[in-house]
Amino acid sequence: MKKKNLILLAFVCLTASMNSYASEPSVKAIKTQIPSRPAGQTDVLELRCDPIPTVRVGFIGLGMRGKGAVDRFMAIEGVEIKALCDLEQYNLDKVRESITSRKRPAAQEYIGEEAWKELCRRSDIDLIYICTDWLTHTPMAVYAMEQGKHVAIEVPAAVTLDECWQLVNTAEKTRKHCMMLENCCYDKFELATLNMAQQGVFGEVVHVEGAYIHDLRSLNFNDRLSTAEAYEPGTGAETKKKPGLIGYWDYWRKKYNIEHTGNPYPTHGLGPVCQILNIHRGDKMNYLVSVSSNQFGMTGYAGKRFGKDSPEAKQTYQLGDMNTTIIKTEKGKTIMIQHDVTSPRPYSRIHLVSGTQGFAQKYPVRQIALDSHYALPRAEMDSVLQAYEHPFYKEAGKQAAELGAIAHGGMDYIMDYRLVYCLRNGLPLDEDVYDAAEWSCLAPLTEMSVANNGAPVEIPDFTRGAWNKLQGLKFAQ
Amino acid sequence: MKKKNLILLAFVCLTASMNSYASEPSVKAIKTQIPSRPAGQTDVLELRCDPIPTVRVGFIGLGMRGKGAVDRFMAIEGVEIKALCDLEQYNLDKVRESITSRKRPAAQEYIGEEAWKELCRRSDIDLIYICTDWLTHTPMAVYAMEQGKHVAIEVPAAVTLDECWQLVNTAEKTRKHCMMLENCCYDKFELATLNMAQQGVFGEVVHVEGAYIHDLRSLNFNDRLSTAEAYEPGTGAETKKKPGLIGYWDYWRKKYNIEHTGNPYPTHGLGPVCQILNIHRGDKMNYLVSVSSNQFGMTGYAGKRFGKDSPEAKQTYQLGDMNTTIIKTEKGKTIMIQHDVTSPRPYSRIHLVSGTQGFAQKYPVRQIALDSHYALPRAEMDSVLQAYEHPFYKEAGKQAAELGAIAHGGMDYIMDYRLVYCLRNGLPLDEDVYDAAEWSCLAPLTEMSVANNGAPVEIPDFTRGAWNKLQGLKFAQ
Repeated sequence: MKKKNLILLAFVCLTASMNSYASEPSVKAIKTQIPSRPAGQTDVLELRCDPIPTVRVGFIGLGMRGKGAVDRFMAIEGVEIKALCDLEQYNLDKVRESITSRKRPAAQEYIGEEAWKELCRRSDIDLIYICTDWLTHTPMAVYAMEQGKHVAIEVPAAVTLDECWQLVNTAEKTRKHCMMLENCCYDKFELATLNMAQQGVFGEVVHVEGAYIHDLRSLNFNDRLSTAEAYEPGTGAETKKKPGLIGYWDYWRKKYNIEHTGNPYPTHGLGPVCQILNIHRGDKMNYLVSVSSNQFGMTGYAGKRFGKDSPEAKQTYQLGDMNTTIIKTEKGKTIMIQHDVTSPRPYSRIHLVSGTQGFAQKYPVRQIALDSHYALPRAEMDSVLQAYEHPFYKEAGKQAAELGAIAHGGMDYIMDYRLVYCLRNGLPLDEDVYDAAEWSCLAPLTEMSVANNGAPVEIPDFTRGAWNKLQGLKFAQ
Repeated sequence: MKKKNLILLAFVCLTASMNSYASEPSVKAIKTQIPSRPAGQTDVLELRCDPIPTVRVGFIGLGMRGKGAVDRFMAIEGVEIKALCDLEQYNLDKVRESITSRKRPAAQEYIGEEAWKELCRRSDIDLIYICTDWLTHTPMAVYAMEQGKHVAIEVPAAVTLDECWQLVNTAEKTRKHCMMLENCCYDKFELATLNMAQQGVFGEVVHVEGAYIHDLRSLNFNDRLSTAEAYEPGTGAETKKKPGLIGYWDYWRKKYNIEHTGNPYPTHGLGPVCQILNIHRGDKMNYLVSVSSNQFGMTGYAGKRFGKDSPEAKQTYQLGDMNTTIIKTEKGKTIMIQHDVTSPRPYSRIHLVSGTQGFAQKYPVRQIALDSHYALPRAEMDSVLQAYEHPFYKEAGKQAAELGAIAHGGMDYIMDYRLVYCLRNGLPLDEDVYDAAEWSCLAPLTEMSVANNGAPVEIPDFTRGAWNKLQGLKFAQ
């Protein structure tokens, strides 16, 4: 399958008729090519694999997200940490210290650009857990599945449509699990509203919203500071803030923002609301329209911090400050998704659910309204959230709370706990490879729409026809 | 100018190239025809007319909005209420009682379908104030201007593109003021944020949001109740809730929702944020994309209230529950506008302003952040709002507060107070005919976009080339 074919677009002739608002609209969306399913391959909906009593894990990428993951896995029963891989000796050292301090068996260490392949080829590993930069997620996941491993990948799982299809095709061919680690699906309020939706509290859910609004301006420029300071093992530098390593993270993220527009990071807002709408489990996303503002924030911030004549202030950044995307589903629902990482705004993922009988919103303030246009008073809202607390929090909320910061408010721990639980019991994972593709594909598709004045772009059915086979999302037990 | 010509669309051939994200996008928006300006006509930007020491007013439509307007005008200096017109004797009676109780001179009364024309032809009237149903706004305003009167029209001023152009052309030809009564522009928080924007507190404003989210489901069905009860003067029925009259309002509003999709009522959210972005005063709206959910709310509500087999439950309603629209401006800013009047949600106009140095949001909770991603604590936010209280509230806030409910939180009084002040002093009005056209045109343009899968639709420059002549919005003093 060639990349060129996948991003080649159908030519659509727009002959809009405005005298009647027909139910069959006359302007079609921009289409992308859907590769046909290789012969003999079938879908991996509700994929069940052999139970793995002890899950042996290899971690690739031990930086911002990776180290926390290793620490969480050490708190979960039935796990062996077999191997670790990073580009930086510093990160390996920190994780080894953590493992040693918990008196766990040492893990094999890998360092260098190609070392992750060696790790993937080990025969004593069941799961590869990938916490590297965005551009390496899909190549690593595909390679790992081809070596017979299940994979868990940080968000976004893929950055191009071609990569989305590679993940789907490889998972279908190898019959291995490919889960994108969308942790926000496991946050307490999100799970409670999912529970409420599944129990019909909102009536028919009509419209949902999500976002990633997170002021990352300072983080995006930390690489500048890193040039002055390099890691020297044993000097004690590791006890200081490690700009050299944070700098690497900033570097690739900023680079992506220089080269791309649209919504490059849609999954935290999209994942939880897609679960509520049962996407590819009875409904599917049909098309999106996406519009970005121009870029003002990075240039303005860089000018203030480094001077108007600095390279950072003179740099061209493709990424507009605010991207807004609207998605229409087959069943007539709408999803609104926003992205802004370059404005001084309070953090928000919105997480709004609006139905014929109820309403909930998480940011900027939690609100629930039940068959009324008055939001419930605080105490009543808390009772409702308590009543609909998701079973995962009943099961594992206490352990999550005991872990403190590395559980990330509970959600990261519960995500890993569920992943291990399903693997140990041979159950389908909560988030499958189609979720990974659907949630990640917004990055390239929003960029297409933005580059074409917000023109509608069709969202592929990654299940290739099976989106209506399952009736609603059900987490395996 | 024929309506047909105006809604005929250019055929656009969509040949999207996706291999490069060029700065010149290859998919063009759907265009509507822009009628050329009649010979000898010039724009009415900052139109100044002769000062009118005593503003003589005729009111058409004395129902939900009209009666309150008359009451407010009696509280403003330099006003004579000369004439009243309505379809219902009941409404005329109530307004006459109000005038009598305040010992003001009696106004001439007009009743019947065509009586408003007679009112407009009086030679002793300066201003016609129109509070009728949406479909009669433009015909009445055009006729009034042609009779040499200034006009103030309830929102929306127009419901078709043809009507928008009729308002602009008639105002330019007659050199009369045509103000759409967008009261939300005068609300306290909105004016404070406008003041902050104009003083640079937000830095460069990049993205704004507005909405009309207001659960009107029960109101939409009150006409059903009205059939049982008719008004009989002198029976005391007027002291009861008047379903017959509320029913009329409901009837035409529901009828519009049966026949139209898109966002039929965009101006309350759009007006205040367009003022902040200086639309047609240095920037202009270039195109929009708009997507509606299907309709679930009206059918569901009607089924519950009247039974599943009731005509109301079986009716087809074109209006989707949630409409979301994104607008891109010439200067690269984005506007997000929503409309939902058929879901059980807390009331919201959002009113969000996001800039390079600051952020404000009104609904669901007031928030201000200044060059930080932390929202100010309540007390500090209140201080900021106090410091940036708009001069209009310093001038007239006290009188507004004394009026209580009919001032509508102050905004309706201040709107009318400013209208009278500008007319008495021969000053340009705060909201001009281009605002009326720009804010109203979303109704037909969003419907076009929705009917074409969210395809981009160009927003006409109603100033026909003069959008950059004024440098920023300045209220006349």
